Amino acid sequence: MEDIVNDRPSTDASMNTLVSLCKRRGFVYQSSEVYGGLTSAWDYGPLGVELKNRIQRAWWRAMTQLHDNIVGLDAAILMHPRVWEASGHVENFTDPLVDCRTCRNRFRTDQMSEELLNARKCPECGGELTDPRQFNLMFKTHLGPVESDASVVYLRPETAQGIYVNFKNVVQTSRVKVPFGIAQVGKAFRNEITTKNFIFRTCEFEQMEMQFFVHPSEDEKWFEYWKAERFEFYKRLGVRQSRLRFHQHGPGELAHYAKVAFDIQYEFPFGWKELEGIHNRTDYDLRRHMEFSGKDLSYLDDVRGERFTPFVIETSAGLTRTVLTVLADAYDEDEVEGEKRSVLRLHPELAPITVGVFPLVKKDGLAELAGEIERSLREEFSTFYDQGGAIGRRYRRQDEVGTPFGITVDYQSKEDRTVTLRFRDSMEQVRVKIEELPERIRRAIREYRRMGE
Amino acid sequence: MEDIVNDRPSTDASMNTLVSLCKRRGFVYQSSEVYGGLTSAWDYGPLGVELKNRIQRAWWRAMTQLHDNIVGLDAAILMHPRVWEASGHVENFTDPLVDCRTCRNRFRTDQMSEELLNARKCPECGGELTDPRQFNLMFKTHLGPVESDASVVYLRPETAQGIYVNFKNVVQTSRVKVPFGIAQVGKAFRNEITTKNFIFRTCEFEQMEMQFFVHPSEDEKWFEYWKAERFEFYKRLGVRQSRLRFHQHGPGELAHYAKVAFDIQYEFPFGWKELEGIHNRTDYDLRRHMEFSGKDLSYLDDVRGERFTPFVIETSAGLTRTVLTVLADAYDEDEVEGEKRSVLRLHPELAPITVGVFPLVKKDGLAELAGEIERSLREEFSTFYDQGGAIGRRYRRQDEVGTPFGITVDYQSKEDRTVTLRFRDSMEQVRVKIEELPERIRRAIREYRRMGE
Repeated sequence: MEDIVNDRPSTDASMNTLVSLCKRRGFVYQSSEVYGGLTSAWDYGPLGVELKNRIQRAWWRAMTQLHDNIVGLDAAILMHPRVWEASGHVENFTDPLVDCRTCRNRFRTDQMSEELLNARKCPECGGELTDPRQFNLMFKTHLGPVESDASVVYLRPETAQGIYVNFKNVVQTSRVKVPFGIAQVGKAFRNEITTKNFIFRTCEFEQMEMQFFVHPSEDEKWFEYWKAERFEFYKRLGVRQSRLRFHQHGPGELAHYAKVAFDIQYEFPFGWKELEGIHNRTDYDLRRHMEFSGKDLSYLDDVRGERFTPFVIETSAGLTRTVLTVLADAYDEDEVEGEKRSVLRLHPELAPITVGVFPLVKKDGLAELAGEIERSLREEFSTFYDQGGAIGRRYRRQDEVGTPFGITVDYQSKEDRTVTLRFRDSMEQVRVKIEELPERIRRAIREYRRMGE
Repeated sequence: MEDIVNDRPSTDASMNTLVSLCKRRGFVYQSSEVYGGLTSAWDYGPLGVELKNRIQRAWWRAMTQLHDNIVGLDAAILMHPRVWEASGHVENFTDPLVDCRTCRNRFRTDQMSEELLNARKCPECGGELTDPRQFNLMFKTHLGPVESDASVVYLRPETAQGIYVNFKNVVQTSRVKVPFGIAQVGKAFRNEITTKNFIFRTCEFEQMEMQFFVHPSEDEKWFEYWKAERFEFYKRLGVRQSRLRFHQHGPGELAHYAKVAFDIQYEFPFGWKELEGIHNRTDYDLRRHMEFSGKDLSYLDDVRGERFTPFVIETSAGLTRTVLTVLADAYDEDEVEGEKRSVLRLHPELAPITVGVFPLVKKDGLAELAGEIERSLREEFSTFYDQGGAIGRRYRRQDEVGTPFGITVDYQSKEDRTVTLRFRDSMEQVRVKIEELPERIRRAIREYRRMGE
């Protein structure tokens, strides 16, 4: 009866549909829109920030609270510039670019056809191109009042390095023992020339990274563990398994630090793309930081009676990218009473609003009773009160933003203190006593969660 | 019996004590420490990030979930550069600096004695000083591959402007009506020459800002409302009222945009300092963005039948600063069995670890039973399992990081399925059935919460 996921989406969302829904309903706005927008930066509106926060919290909880061998960290965005020399970013984190001498546009040579490149002709205007040069993707700024080479700092292009340079601190202060992990969520910045696909690839984005430190002999075992575990995570968020797959990096794709790498890909409207990377980074990063800092970052294992430099299994997910995944995967259209209905079939624990509360009409004390119910639920659930327009329209508005439960207060409610509880996906309605609402909602959420396991 | 706050701290924490505790127990590390550290940036360790997250969540919940007229937002750090011209930051967000021609040090003239300034002598070496010049505190970087004036973007020095430029978007997409607020938590960056007092003033920090949009005739009413409400917030976090006070900005202190401004100050070990500002910013910001963007940001009030530019009441709190406040306020020392005990009397909803679980000894199945209990509590509470060392030492370790509840599994536990539940502040111990633990802990937390109201 409380089947809130009676079927999975049957309609594929186009990017236009998603972008338009996101703007119209306050999920995502273009950054600085009143000033014409800023390339490749996006702002999360009232519903978008709630969705993003819930995904972040689900990841954090799954990683730190439910694993007794993973602790959290939040390192600063500005780090010592030597960090990026050690990591290889100063040297290697570059794109090859050419300029057009006529129209001044810039292009990535690795995205141009060989033909154009050989002809040295601009793909925009046919003008002459310069020689290719390497362009570093790190944003550079200066710490302190003097703009000199000595004051250069970078906006971090990945959160992982903040974990490596704190490895020793965490070992010394947290009673963790290898194998253990350090989890972090935070912003990273990449000065990408070609950003595209809405919030999929942007210059400013958020990562959810976990670095798991293991004995060098156990890297393959833990790699397999995390590969499976991370795939399950997306299923638990309600993402369809048929839209998820692994992609193994071939020899040409492997990063310089990686021994093995798998992507978890999602089938976006624009094709299969990386959602998360699981990498065996070996002891590359810790060794480099030892070399560049002169500090000993090895680990003394008192059970094995052995000192070693741990290998790292990294799980690197994009938070903003997962927001897009969840939205694309949840979007659906069906027909209700001859009209098209747009619905986001979001997991109830991710939905920005959990419960909508509606008086059938404003008068006769129904608005007051509905307001009272809304306030009583607010401590535990994210609620939204709406008294405007026909009840069917109010349901549709909540369906479109993924609100899994709707409560309608009618004339009968005043007599017997019962209300209608409506389920977003099945559109079933059941009569429930007001005082039993919290437990009925909790139960439905628990059922949904069980289905993802 | 479950008095977990039997008395408030009687020992004042010195900054040295706090900094040392933070480092030793994994609350706060110096950024990039293995590379000698980066001035004025700090990393939050396993316990610090949990404390920070809990404060952030308490603020977010108090603002958005518990107020039906406040919605959230998360704007990008990189914004269109015109935003900062409109806000006045390009022109006014500066410090006056002088250089020493001999030792090359730089100084803020507003922090130098008039005597030295008149004599034009360096306070470090006695060398000759240059003329003062204005130094802008915004970090500057370049978007795209060309480093030119046209590509300059800034790291936002405050989160507020992200709210103002999205005012229209939120009004159009969220069914909010004036008076309403927009809340945001996020990083901001200021290139401060003199950073000090640990995490109190840093170049990279986090703000929790809420901008409340009101009819111009109601600004004073809402100012008073938010002034009172925000003061209560800190009390609800458990901060002692005797350490909190208001400070009204005099005519010389008022920012150019402010009509009235009050700070909520806390008595830190280094004196009374600003924790949060409540500002009547009038319609200054919206008017400036209208002027600079050419877009209409006025509001049509259909109840009043009037179009106007709302006034803004801003509540601007420092998240990282609140972490320091909560730590300083919670620190205490007392004596237990002739030994000094350090204890953080943190609100149980802020404590990084809620429940410690300890087997009295590892053998005879006690470790297994304790592990079982820990796993059963983990879904709901943040737990920590510790089987190392004397039980008294394990209690002390948890007291020092503010864990409000401790569960000890002993031989009797195997017989009658009861355990000892210990309260951090009173150090009282009660015998509780294992299956009743969650409800006993919940009840104690509720009691603590009530005391803050």
